[in-house]
Amino acid sequence: MYPNSIEKLIECFRKLPSVGRKTAERYAMALVEMNKDEAREFAQAVLEVTDKIKYCSICGHLTEKELCSICEDENRDHNTICVVQNPKDVLAIERIGLYKGVYHVLHGAISTTRGILPEDINIESLLKRINDDTKEIILATNSTIEGDTTALYLSKILKNYPHVFVTRLASGLPTGGNLDYVDDVTLIRALQGRIKQ
Amino acid sequence: MYPNSIEKLIECFRKLPSVGRKTAERYAMALVEMNKDEAREFAQAVLEVTDKIKYCSICGHLTEKELCSICEDENRDHNTICVVQNPKDVLAIERIGLYKGVYHVLHGAISTTRGILPEDINIESLLKRINDDTKEIILATNSTIEGDTTALYLSKILKNYPHVFVTRLASGLPTGGNLDYVDDVTLIRALQGRIKQ
Repeated sequence: MYPNSIEKLIECFRKLPSVGRKTAERYAMALVEMNKDEAREFAQAVLEVTDKIKYCSICGHLTEKELCSICEDENRDHNTICVVQNPKDVLAIERIGLYKGVYHVLHGAISTTRGILPEDINIESLLKRINDDTKEIILATNSTIEGDTTALYLSKILKNYPHVFVTRLASGLPTGGNLDYVDDVTLIRALQGRIKQ
Repeated sequence: MYPNSIEKLIECFRKLPSVGRKTAERYAMALVEMNKDEAREFAQAVLEVTDKIKYCSICGHLTEKELCSICEDENRDHNTICVVQNPKDVLAIERIGLYKGVYHVLHGAISTTRGILPEDINIESLLKRINDDTKEIILATNSTIEGDTTALYLSKILKNYPHVFVTRLASGLPTGGNLDYVDDVTLIRALQGRIKQ
């Protein structure tokens, strides 16, 4: 019903996460109504990301160079590795400004339901990074079934490196969360993981 | 925090309607994870829409040629003109398959709050289209304050063309609802129940 080129654009927008037909139409129409320079800039930005963005050859984080800015930074502690599922998780941890180690991005998590196996994610390159100086590996996968499965799998494998201290992010009540609104699993974990005051 | 090219893409996505920082980040990351061909296709689709899409020189609807497919169609009744706010509204009415006349797209509506005046929308070209053969003009603007204001304004101006029968879509439209989000039955009833202004 739309002219061909618009239909094609709508189909492209639909490939983005949680974008249905109506939303894709709104986005396409917004682009039609944008001024031409802005729209061209948009296309250019897509192309640039496609051409420039690579994964850091050490940690798998996003970069435009061979190494990401974190792996390149000599002031960081390269013997503490924080393992996360996605590049966005790196950004989240960097935002709090507390962590001074480096990262390892798995690009996914083990999932029995979706058929994602340990060899489908970036685990091998993590093991290759471990050397005699490696002090600690922090398992910072999501607090979901998949994230927990992955953390469990990694903690078992990492027993082969007894000099490495393996930790997992604490799970419990989120700050500002009301106890009676929190789900049961969170509450169970908060109770089990209670700490001496 | 993200590499530059990703930050630029996030800013582009934020220009789309109702897309905030978090959503823009998700979209940008989805593009990073897309295969390169799909991402290039995306950029290409944006460029094609930018280059090819024009407004029909008669009715203002979207087209890749001089005239839109509806204005070009000799089987349609060119003496009945349905006036809508946006190209998406044309699609919505075409979808119900009931209307055989042509359209006129205003590309907006009069709005006192947003300072959109009658001369800012496609009204002049509508008046120019009216000739001795014009039978009916259906005011199919949204059932919102702005749409109603525009319909009222047009119905007053169109009194200068006493041979033209001016109608407004029936108030089958839910108040506050946008025309292109309405379900088909409501739209059919609104079209059938249109009343003389």
